[in-house]
Amino acid sequence: MSNMNKVIFGSTKDSDMHYAVKTPVTSSFFYLETRGKKYALLDKVDFSIIPKNLRIKSVPLNPFSEEAKKLRLKTSDRNKLAYYIFKRYGLMGRKVQIPIHFPLDMADFLRRKGAKLVPAFPFFPERAVKTKEEIRYIKESLAHTKMAFRIIENILRRSRIRKNKIYYQNKILTSEFLKQEAEKALIEKGMFDLLGMIISTEKQTAIPHHIGFGPILPHQPIVCDIFPRHRASGYFSDMTRTYVKGRPSPEIQTMYAAVLRAQNAAIKKIRSGVSAKEIYDITANVILKNGYHIGDYGFIHGLGHGVGLDIHEKPSLKANSEDILETGNIITIEPGLYYSRLGGIRLEDMILVTKTSFQNLTNHPKKLVIP
Amino acid sequence: MSNMNKVIFGSTKDSDMHYAVKTPVTSSFFYLETRGKKYALLDKVDFSIIPKNLRIKSVPLNPFSEEAKKLRLKTSDRNKLAYYIFKRYGLMGRKVQIPIHFPLDMADFLRRKGAKLVPAFPFFPERAVKTKEEIRYIKESLAHTKMAFRIIENILRRSRIRKNKIYYQNKILTSEFLKQEAEKALIEKGMFDLLGMIISTEKQTAIPHHIGFGPILPHQPIVCDIFPRHRASGYFSDMTRTYVKGRPSPEIQTMYAAVLRAQNAAIKKIRSGVSAKEIYDITANVILKNGYHIGDYGFIHGLGHGVGLDIHEKPSLKANSEDILETGNIITIEPGLYYSRLGGIRLEDMILVTKTSFQNLTNHPKKLVIP
Repeated sequence: MSNMNKVIFGSTKDSDMHYAVKTPVTSSFFYLETRGKKYALLDKVDFSIIPKNLRIKSVPLNPFSEEAKKLRLKTSDRNKLAYYIFKRYGLMGRKVQIPIHFPLDMADFLRRKGAKLVPAFPFFPERAVKTKEEIRYIKESLAHTKMAFRIIENILRRSRIRKNKIYYQNKILTSEFLKQEAEKALIEKGMFDLLGMIISTEKQTAIPHHIGFGPILPHQPIVCDIFPRHRASGYFSDMTRTYVKGRPSPEIQTMYAAVLRAQNAAIKKIRSGVSAKEIYDITANVILKNGYHIGDYGFIHGLGHGVGLDIHEKPSLKANSEDILETGNIITIEPGLYYSRLGGIRLEDMILVTKTSFQNLTNHPKKLVIP
Repeated sequence: MSNMNKVIFGSTKDSDMHYAVKTPVTSSFFYLETRGKKYALLDKVDFSIIPKNLRIKSVPLNPFSEEAKKLRLKTSDRNKLAYYIFKRYGLMGRKVQIPIHFPLDMADFLRRKGAKLVPAFPFFPERAVKTKEEIRYIKESLAHTKMAFRIIENILRRSRIRKNKIYYQNKILTSEFLKQEAEKALIEKGMFDLLGMIISTEKQTAIPHHIGFGPILPHQPIVCDIFPRHRASGYFSDMTRTYVKGRPSPEIQTMYAAVLRAQNAAIKKIRSGVSAKEIYDITANVILKNGYHIGDYGFIHGLGHGVGLDIHEKPSLKANSEDILETGNIITIEPGLYYSRLGGIRLEDMILVTKTSFQNLTNHPKKLVIP
């Protein structure tokens, strides 16, 4: 742990809090790092649920709450409690790092009382470099996500095209049905789909984050982007494939080939010490060289991002990123091309950065056409 | 909408943002209310996904980002963009409400530049009073949750006790299995379990938020607290039942009866205009009159909370609440008793506050013993 004083207030819905205590806690509580020690100040409803091996001292919050309520201060009980804790742990007047989502009313009040709060992002920079345990968690999460893709591919393979509709087991195949089948299987593996998956069709695919709905159309791009989280570990995985059921147009085939080339070119160059910007630029060059665009249409988003307890975390692989890849980063490489007339193509793999090279954790076939 | 200027920055993971735009948006964006107009400043990846009928003007963010990057300011591109938008929409120097989870580094920067930011909680106070549409969404969410309870009850009923273990289909019945079965059924109904459900057994039940794990023990309390969210609408439901498979001790039976009495006494008094504190006090009195405790053991948590796009929202039914119940509030009434030696009992229903009375939306049997 760093020498900085650190304070988080929240539940483990906050991924920094989750990282700190490594177990789900649904009520808001205070987490402190100060003078080389770690504390969790917990309400009775959550007391004693933090794993012992983390060397975090669990402190019952309720006696403090009682004391704090008596303070004659014009603010909420919650802010009084924060003030009481800052005083009690000698944090007033000393630099204290807080996450950028620390409650603003609490920060305002503490500052009025003399607290020196420094918003820090990333709050735990070490989150970008995954431990062996974290790599195992992410691999496990990704293994289940790949299974969901196999289910989708199977359904598409077994479906039949009739009069510009796709039928599966004699029903019109929809985005909703595919999501449901993928999700049922994920749930059985202890995964949960926190943010909703993307299974978009035809023109929908031209909007990268369109979640998709309605009948899946034949001969048109189907973008599947699934990013569920493992319930037990809390770690995300993130993966995208684009398919066409039937016969894609030559334009779509060429676009797909360009995206695949751009992705391969980027992945090949990954190793510790390379800048994220360099990897982005390699991709962008392939896109441009193949006659596609960057900006308002074509390749319109970043190349990738770290994945862990957040679906988007450090490092960031954008045009203006200042991040340098490090051994133990797990990043997505997800180039895409989007044109409102044609639709979109995106391919996304998860890559572990190693000292001299990389490991493609996804390692799942890429085939546009499902006949 | 109110006359206040309001700004949110975030994705619809932020429930206030979800409330504002009523559709999932996974990337962070700016939402503005100013001079009687509403704006969503959206990245290309999310553009045009906000429903038209909300009368929110969708504005492409990318041209602003390009302009903002050129500003010679020592801060992140994101903060530059926020500053650019505040200037462009005439928000500098005027009072602007922001949610308490507004990014602190952004708030700090904007304030240094002269922004008058006022953290507001609740940010949209009107969220506490549900519209007809919201009531429908919550009823739908709750209907599916009740189905999950019926599944759990069925499994418990069909299970057999042998040598202090419970067997279902010849396997030892576990918390994990019950959660999986409940969740599979919820998923099929378009529900998702965002925060993890509680199915705890024996001593685990003495910690109200213990999520539970391992074999379910006979003759001991089983606390089931399920609070999933409907994927399509985003609305939560929240419900708790406590069971004993086998023969509960007389102490547990008496505790259950007291919790049920406390709950009924509270529910009976609900109507618009009554203070939340009064309802809490009624419950607390029943608990005390029955010889149980309030504070460190016994009834150790609040009585209930509003439910909507957040699992916990206004109004709050705690000992020190200043909230007054209003027609259209949907609240939980969930008294509980917890003793480390005996375990815990909790019962939770969702109640719609009406002008002269209440409506129990949960309306699901309460029976401790499953033989």
